[in-house]
Amino acid sequence: VDPVVSRLLISCPDRAGIVAATSTFLAQRGANIVSSAQHTTDPGGGRFLMRMEYVLERDDRRGRTLGDEFEREVGEPFAMQWRIAPSVPRKRVAILASREDHCLLDLLWRWRSGELPAEIVLVASNHEQAGEQAARFDVPFLHVPVTADTKAEAEETLVAALRTEHVELVVLARYMQILSGEFLERVGCPVINIHHSFLPAFVGAAPYRQALDRGVKIIGATAHYATEELDAGPIIEQDVERVDHRYGVQRLAEVGQDIERRVLARAVRWHLDDRVLLDGSKTVVF
Amino acid sequence: VDPVVSRLLISCPDRAGIVAATSTFLAQRGANIVSSAQHTTDPGGGRFLMRMEYVLERDDRRGRTLGDEFEREVGEPFAMQWRIAPSVPRKRVAILASREDHCLLDLLWRWRSGELPAEIVLVASNHEQAGEQAARFDVPFLHVPVTADTKAEAEETLVAALRTEHVELVVLARYMQILSGEFLERVGCPVINIHHSFLPAFVGAAPYRQALDRGVKIIGATAHYATEELDAGPIIEQDVERVDHRYGVQRLAEVGQDIERRVLARAVRWHLDDRVLLDGSKTVVF
Amino acid sequence: VDPVVSRLLISCPDRAGIVAATSTFLAQRGANIVSSAQHTTDPGGGRFLMRMEYVLERDDRRGRTLGDEFEREVGEPFAMQWRIAPSVPRKRVAILASREDHCLLDLLWRWRSGELPAEIVLVASNHEQAGEQAARFDVPFLHVPVTADTKAEAEETLVAALRTEHVELVVLARYMQILSGEFLERVGCPVINIHHSFLPAFVGAAPYRQALDRGVKIIGATAHYATEELDAGPIIEQDVERVDHRYGVQRLAEVGQDIERRVLARAVRWHLDDRVLLDGSKTVVF
Amino acid sequence: VDPVVSRLLISCPDRAGIVAATSTFLAQRGANIVSSAQHTTDPGGGRFLMRMEYVLERDDRRGRTLGDEFEREVGEPFAMQWRIAPSVPRKRVAILASREDHCLLDLLWRWRSGELPAEIVLVASNHEQAGEQAARFDVPFLHVPVTADTKAEAEETLVAALRTEHVELVVLARYMQILSGEFLERVGCPVINIHHSFLPAFVGAAPYRQALDRGVKIIGATAHYATEELDAGPIIEQDVERVDHRYGVQRLAEVGQDIERRVLARAVRWHLDDRVLLDGSKTVVF
Repeated sequence: VDPVVSRLLISCPDRAGIVAATSTFLAQRGANIVSSAQHTTDPGGGRFLMRMEYVLERDDRRGRTLGDEFEREVGEPFAMQWRIAPSVPRKRVAILASREDHCLLDLLWRWRSGELPAEIVLVASNHEQAGEQAARFDVPFLHVPVTADTKAEAEETLVAALRTEHVELVVLARYMQILSGEFLERVGCPVINIHHSFLPAFVGAAPYRQALDRGVKIIGATAHYATEELDAGPIIEQDVERVDHRYGVQRLAEVGQDIERRVLARAVRWHLDDRVLLDGSKTVVF
Repeated sequence: VDPVVSRLLISCPDRAGIVAATSTFLAQRGANIVSSAQHTTDPGGGRFLMRMEYVLERDDRRGRTLGDEFEREVGEPFAMQWRIAPSVPRKRVAILASREDHCLLDLLWRWRSGELPAEIVLVASNHEQAGEQAARFDVPFLHVPVTADTKAEAEETLVAALRTEHVELVVLARYMQILSGEFLERVGCPVINIHHSFLPAFVGAAPYRQALDRGVKIIGATAHYATEELDAGPIIEQDVERVDHRYGVQRLAEVGQDIERRVLARAVRWHLDDRVLLDGSKTVVF
Repeated sequence: VDPVVSRLLISCPDRAGIVAATSTFLAQRGANIVSSAQHTTDPGGGRFLMRMEYVLERDDRRGRTLGDEFEREVGEPFAMQWRIAPSVPRKRVAILASREDHCLLDLLWRWRSGELPAEIVLVASNHEQAGEQAARFDVPFLHVPVTADTKAEAEETLVAALRTEHVELVVLARYMQILSGEFLERVGCPVINIHHSFLPAFVGAAPYRQALDRGVKIIGATAHYATEELDAGPIIEQDVERVDHRYGVQRLAEVGQDIERRVLARAVRWHLDDRVLLDGSKTVVF
Repeated sequence: VDPVVSRLLISCPDRAGIVAATSTFLAQRGANIVSSAQHTTDPGGGRFLMRMEYVLERDDRRGRTLGDEFEREVGEPFAMQWRIAPSVPRKRVAILASREDHCLLDLLWRWRSGELPAEIVLVASNHEQAGEQAARFDVPFLHVPVTADTKAEAEETLVAALRTEHVELVVLARYMQILSGEFLERVGCPVINIHHSFLPAFVGAAPYRQALDRGVKIIGATAHYATEELDAGPIIEQDVERVDHRYGVQRLAEVGQDIERRVLARAVRWHLDDRVLLDGSKTVVF
């Protein structure tokens, strides 16, 4: 069997000795560090962020108490925020979509082909048609209609379903309902959104129309963690394509769909691989 | 000798027969159309924009009265705004720069290597050091210091110099003084500016600092015609580069300088080749 | 009803008067030229290539005899190779795929969403699983197994099916069987292939493995018209993505799949829009 | 004063404990690790490559004997190839150029602006005009004419000059003479070349002509370490730009010059920052 890869993620005040303490701790337990990346937000006294991938070679039982020991011997002395994220079992993921299904279909296809290391346990949508895509990939589907009057109720239904399924990541795959701050708080796990513009340009509705009106020569898409403030959360990934005066709003949207698909897929994958660390309102992607 | 290439630029209400009337007019005068591009802003009744490059093969004298005849036979009947732009003589260009000289040097080098079909007749700057670059390329230099108190006076000096030199294009090569609407009006020719962000993101001062604070994963630069409203003029060209969390504000600026150089050079070249037509607050680049 | 857009495609020796003759011919029949592009392969006596999109506004019956008249009045005098390609009815397309289905699924999805103006009349594959994708989109499926011994027979079966369906374009969506020159000749319509490298680098088998071994920092994909010489046909479109030392051959292939999908989709769309003209062993994409 | 940053570069067989041993060694000497990156060429028993940037905070004298101690305590036990590269003094660099001076000028400008952490101690060329550029930046210039008959002699002159100046990096900034394997061996330091194609496509002479003839839609440039086999050395960096059928060979070359400049500049900078490690015939750029 393949050895299980674990990821140790650390954020703490920068000072000498962090790498030595951490790597020595792991070495003493027979862990082979297969990958490591670090970043200091400010060389003159910022925060130190690190991601280490390691494989426990020797004693399987060591792994169970490793967390407690790490906190006592390394985490606490260095005032670390840290977590160990095993690559197995895979994260439980729910996808929310609306009428446009290109991102939904793309994520499902990548998942089935083995590109996305996740368990997709739920697709939910305010449009019934998304259920067909879910059915093709044998994923449970929840239809949650939303009107101006039933918005709170719909969020309640979603939160309940996501909690029942123990979802660890929610992906908004062009889900066109604005989720409340309360929803984001209660859902209790990260939420990744794809916005169809090169943020911070063209916040809000109809970004391709905005792009057309401004006459930009390049359009883009942005995957970010959803926060209460619309389109303002930490950016995980962006990409762009060149366009010109011949592109009307529909053609811009078609080009944009290509960008959205790959930007969202990269962001989701990096999150699943525990490569994305928060640095205030920004991200570090290792 | 090489035949002189002329460009015919047309903007008029869209209707049938424009291409036929125009190309027949040119054919009757022995002009060979070597390149042609057109765009209709709205298929259901918008404006028709066209650029034709032609070579007059037969009778040189025809060229002299060609404009009058075109207005009478084609321009007026189709309610055209049109102009004929010969490729020779080359356009007279002035470059305004400030302390950072990468765009200035780049334009001068491209000019000397033959890439920019222009006569660069003046470099002006509020910083004396730009004079060294100008001297190396044997271009006259004008030092125009600017303080809060002398801004109007400095603009007056610039306008006078630009007019004396019959300048047909002003290039703001990271010129860091905001020019007044009055200046833009009085200078009497197009002004191209390079803004060091991917507009409309990060309008105004310190865009690389703004980009760092927002945590974008891609930065860009935008060349546009200067208008009275800051950073809001018609966009001619944009380009981008990928960055990551390791880039501080200085490294972003260094990467940005590469983008600025090529974006500005492309915009200037396209303008010199009469490829850029205005479509309201947007551009069509043929 | 929307007016039918027709495309007039021309290739002839360059000389004065072509645009005038063509556009006058169209204007006299009430055709409004909505788009036009031209290219001269060599200003000093090359070939002239042109694409004009026009809408016949007046008399529907004119359209029927328009071709004969054009040949007599314009085509023959200018020694043109020309054709008129109506946008309706849509071209009949067949897709050939093998085990990897990302390009197949992508084309089917774009087709269903209205992005590809085609009738997809057949999916054929040497792998039975492709039939599931075809079934989901209600497209007839033909399973044509291929072994070293049955290659000629399989090609015969394919040719017969493609002819029966009056296919006008064959798309090789990662079809991993090498088709013979005889097949390409007998199929009687253009064949577009996607090669998973940035041609002419990494011709032949296992290009991602070749890319890994050479240590390139960017990988790409190439859509081209299939010719008898492998991977040497006229290139329609290429695109690339940046990779680094962390990418093994599987991750290269995953990144490559994203490139392949969009490169193939663009090439197919441009072909369907009659934007691709041949210039010897190269293409002009208007 | 700023503390001196040192880089520790390691290549050794992969096994558990390398990071721990190295970082503990550094921690015990009061070194703060400010950046670290590692790569394993093959998780199942490949080579382990690592780059650590550290700042010695405590005792300056420790630095002097640090190398001997590291070899004894860490390097030898782990069978490491390693070196410590201080950021100060800066590396001594020579640039070789020919008639086209865009890369030469670009490197000199970046150096003067502070972007390239180097001492440029010599510019040499087989064309006298390069001397003007060198003079403008106050860099010594050596004119070494080359003919078919004097090639060996010219290489001798170059090697002597490079050795006299204790050059640590030679940059071939579009130097159009093929250097012999003997030269590369005798010069005793790395040599970075810029090739004006997206290698391995278009090896050898006139790559823009080759690109035009093949009809590619994207062109590129490649910076690589020079080896005896032409255009086959380890690739450090590549970049590309989109082109189309309107680009003749001169315009391709102009676009290419932009790519060459930034690709070469990045490769040189990364080398100067000791970010480039060799992995057989490939590079790892940390």
